[in-house]
Amino acid sequence: MPSRIKKLNAIAEAKKLDAFLITSAASVKYLSGYFFYFEYGSSPFHFLPAALFVMPGKTASLVIADNELHQSANINTGISIKPYASYVYETPLESTKQFLIQLHEVAKQNGIGNARVGIEQNSFPLAIAQSLSSQYPKIEFVNIAPEIAHLRMVKDSDEIELIRKAASLSDIGQASVLKNAKTGIAELELFNLVRNDMEASVGTRVPLMADLSSGINTSSGGGMPTNKIINSSDLILSDFTPCLNGYWGDSCNTIVVGKPAASQKKSFILVKEALEIGINAIRPGVQAQEIDKLMRRHIGNYPHHSGHGVGIMYHEEPRIVPYNKAELVPNMVIALEPAIYEKDFGIRLEHLVVVTESGCEILTKFEHCFEQCS
Amino acid sequence: MPSRIKKLNAIAEAKKLDAFLITSAASVKYLSGYFFYFEYGSSPFHFLPAALFVMPGKTASLVIADNELHQSANINTGISIKPYASYVYETPLESTKQFLIQLHEVAKQNGIGNARVGIEQNSFPLAIAQSLSSQYPKIEFVNIAPEIAHLRMVKDSDEIELIRKAASLSDIGQASVLKNAKTGIAELELFNLVRNDMEASVGTRVPLMADLSSGINTSSGGGMPTNKIINSSDLILSDFTPCLNGYWGDSCNTIVVGKPAASQKKSFILVKEALEIGINAIRPGVQAQEIDKLMRRHIGNYPHHSGHGVGIMYHEEPRIVPYNKAELVPNMVIALEPAIYEKDFGIRLEHLVVVTESGCEILTKFEHCFEQCS
Repeated sequence: MPSRIKKLNAIAEAKKLDAFLITSAASVKYLSGYFFYFEYGSSPFHFLPAALFVMPGKTASLVIADNELHQSANINTGISIKPYASYVYETPLESTKQFLIQLHEVAKQNGIGNARVGIEQNSFPLAIAQSLSSQYPKIEFVNIAPEIAHLRMVKDSDEIELIRKAASLSDIGQASVLKNAKTGIAELELFNLVRNDMEASVGTRVPLMADLSSGINTSSGGGMPTNKIINSSDLILSDFTPCLNGYWGDSCNTIVVGKPAASQKKSFILVKEALEIGINAIRPGVQAQEIDKLMRRHIGNYPHHSGHGVGIMYHEEPRIVPYNKAELVPNMVIALEPAIYEKDFGIRLEHLVVVTESGCEILTKFEHCFEQCS
Repeated sequence: MPSRIKKLNAIAEAKKLDAFLITSAASVKYLSGYFFYFEYGSSPFHFLPAALFVMPGKTASLVIADNELHQSANINTGISIKPYASYVYETPLESTKQFLIQLHEVAKQNGIGNARVGIEQNSFPLAIAQSLSSQYPKIEFVNIAPEIAHLRMVKDSDEIELIRKAASLSDIGQASVLKNAKTGIAELELFNLVRNDMEASVGTRVPLMADLSSGINTSSGGGMPTNKIINSSDLILSDFTPCLNGYWGDSCNTIVVGKPAASQKKSFILVKEALEIGINAIRPGVQAQEIDKLMRRHIGNYPHHSGHGVGIMYHEEPRIVPYNKAELVPNMVIALEPAIYEKDFGIRLEHLVVVTESGCEILTKFEHCFEQCS
């Protein structure tokens, strides 16, 4: 049984569950390894998500469309793959029916009966609930989304290696901004050079959430690149969140094209200090809120979180926010992103770190560098 | 009341429904206009989809996260926007709770009672069903996904204009392949030049499903671009499916770098003829299967559909497949994509058309051109 599925045993015991039926793409990836390529989304030829059925301590089965089987190399050993006929061009689409037939077969083989089943209520399709309830009238569905989110906070070593690789794509992106930014280039043109560098480095398309905005637009914290031309003395705010093999990296830098105003330089130094203060304060036992407060204390308030966990989702627990009393533990992966937004410019700086036994290691290796020539 | 929401009245009557609660991103877009930017996905700060509540002939309300309100300009007039507090950094995330409070408020205002509610069963979250059922024990959820898919087959004039614009991005992409393809360039490098041209033309990032494969890889029908170098006499298969303002375009071309082998040239001509035969046969009253059969008869079988509807999703009804007896009607938008796959090369050609009163209009304006110099 894959090690992450074993972690469900404690949830089963605490919530008195007989089984789990996991359907959110993030948790299916976390527990089984299976994921689909982000920019394609799931196939247009089937209409229910891959579903992971787990009998704690016993079996794990993944009900999956047969036309997704080419991605089955990602699926961890120990999981029984149960494909269903989702699409053939010769006969009508019956993917929902075929999914449910296969799911009922798995449920029957495992003697599910009128079980208490752990599910994630916000992503669990009513079609599945109705179908199982009609067969097993006393089946109960118990929301365990918070418990799975809690599990996902602390990463395994293989996950940290995957996040490290995604973080190195962020580094390539930030280096590319420094190399390619110049007066007269459009934001979108610069963005495309950045994305090209990232994608060429791994030889595949890279799903990429990104802010790349310049000049006055940095004052509101970012935005997607447009055909706006970057002018002399414009700031450029670049927040790159690339995905590789289903795990995300995250980073943000702000640079100036040409020479900065004194107030901009001063703000940059303050934000960089705040980030260092936050990073230096990270260690096991510290509450998330303390990191948040230390950074705000140094530079004043900003209208967003101070950071967040990163992994299979680009924002996950633990959130580094004023209310969060969760204590940091080793192998949490956290992005910190303090900022100063003034009327006519904004500066945000972000690193991704992994909590260690004694502090943290910075996973994004680029240096926040305000001026291209420095 | 927006015109597309009025179309629900007939479904309400036929299925004896009191209300609709629509939660799939595609149908929410279709009925309300609201959509989120594809490459960002929905916000990581809330965990239930935007939900459109419709009392047929009376009211329409969209329950939506407040941090998605910046996209509310897309929402059609006549729809009441009901935002809920999905995220503030100062207090814990309660987006599910806040969503449900707002949904119950809307349900109460509309006197929903123990209604029969039309939903899409595969995307309807169990959390919503459980919450409404606990308040209204006799509420019934009735799957109307097939009826909505049926509605979406025939496009309104505003939709056709949006698809026309997305199709013109396909044209830009195919022109860019012809311009930039050369011996020695990597697939991914070529792809990035293509994508840059598309994005620069509209000044935004463009969500883009794409095959761009070369040489032997064309024989299996395509695939995502990689660092593979394009060699002299390689075929390049480029299938571009870009999204603009929530509507998709679609097109495919196959070209040769340098001079084609006689067998390749022969196959290209056959596929081009098949596509022309298909396009010429499109008119109101013809069954989808007839188009499929005409194209296969000319070039032999290929292991995929002959085409599909295009709109808010890049594959939708009507599917142009051997079993589909659905008759074409004006304002359906259809992609046709016949192909020949041999052992060492593959050729697929695709145009996007809109059915007219007397035939069809081709929305993709590029010409399928096998050799760059011709």
